[in-house]
Amino acid sequence: MTTPVLQELIRALQCLPGIGPKSAQRAAFYLLERNRDGARRLARHLEEAMTRIGHCESCRTFSENSRCRICESPERDPGTLCVVETPLDVAAIEHALDYKGQYFVLMGRLSPIDGVSPESLKLNLLEERLATGVVKELIVATGTTMEGEATAHYLKQMARHLQVKATRIAYGVPVGGELEYVDSSTLSHAIQSRREY
Amino acid sequence: MTTPVLQELIRALQCLPGIGPKSAQRAAFYLLERNRDGARRLARHLEEAMTRIGHCESCRTFSENSRCRICESPERDPGTLCVVETPLDVAAIEHALDYKGQYFVLMGRLSPIDGVSPESLKLNLLEERLATGVVKELIVATGTTMEGEATAHYLKQMARHLQVKATRIAYGVPVGGELEYVDSSTLSHAIQSRREY
Repeated sequence: MTTPVLQELIRALQCLPGIGPKSAQRAAFYLLERNRDGARRLARHLEEAMTRIGHCESCRTFSENSRCRICESPERDPGTLCVVETPLDVAAIEHALDYKGQYFVLMGRLSPIDGVSPESLKLNLLEERLATGVVKELIVATGTTMEGEATAHYLKQMARHLQVKATRIAYGVPVGGELEYVDSSTLSHAIQSRREY
Repeated sequence: MTTPVLQELIRALQCLPGIGPKSAQRAAFYLLERNRDGARRLARHLEEAMTRIGHCESCRTFSENSRCRICESPERDPGTLCVVETPLDVAAIEHALDYKGQYFVLMGRLSPIDGVSPESLKLNLLEERLATGVVKELIVATGTTMEGEATAHYLKQMARHLQVKATRIAYGVPVGGELEYVDSSTLSHAIQSRREY
């Protein structure tokens, strides 16, 4: 029943995360029926964003300019550097607290099995930056997956080698969380990482 | 943290059904990180589909040509005409059974409160078609919402006036459904619409 042009659109919509054949079909029909202007606007902004947005040459997050707004800001302390996996993590930290340091965004995590090496994460950029002696503390905020932990370990070694203090963000029971509802690996991590009180 | 171009993309993505600010952000970052080619392809196909896809002049479903493939097909029986609300309904029927008749797609349903009149559903086209005497049976497959039922009633009157037999598809307990899990309005409809056995 669908026309070739419509089929192409339905296939193309499946590049979006969480959109399978069924929701793509629903979305295509919805746009054709109700929101052709919105769809045209989306087409323009997709093209513009994919063309204009690159990576900040200093922290590697997404940026339209050679350096992102955080790296450019004179109010940010270059002595504190937080390493995260993705730009979404930057957004989450910026949203949650009044962090005044800078970031380094890995755009991934070390994973030899997927061919993600220190080079592909541009860790040489980070190493050069630590070598300048400006950074006093490296906050390692990679995830707790196996690859995230391996990346954290690699960063710790790099910092130690260059005599920069490295810290790891705390993982444990979420604030407001009740012990009985917390999953067992989080709970076991929280108990292992207990602090003096 | 997000750049203006990125913010525009996140806003534009929200034209898709079921995509709010959070999933739009996730989708935008995902496309930038992992699938820029897919995003560009999506932009092209959105633009192409919105420009090239119009309505079939005979049955009003989506079509790139003046008449859709079903209306053009010599294998379809013009004597049986099934009226549905949307092109998705056509897709569902085509997928489910070997229906050999033709369709008329309302692209909506009568709803005076939203300003949807018989004229805006182009019911005059349908009326002209019934008046030719080619159609022997009008299958009314609009939904069971209040507007769907009102539309069905309107179509029944139109068919009766033009001396065309009108039928309504059966609504009731889904095949394979167990009575205890069926919602009460479906069950009450199924009992009211019981047939001799």
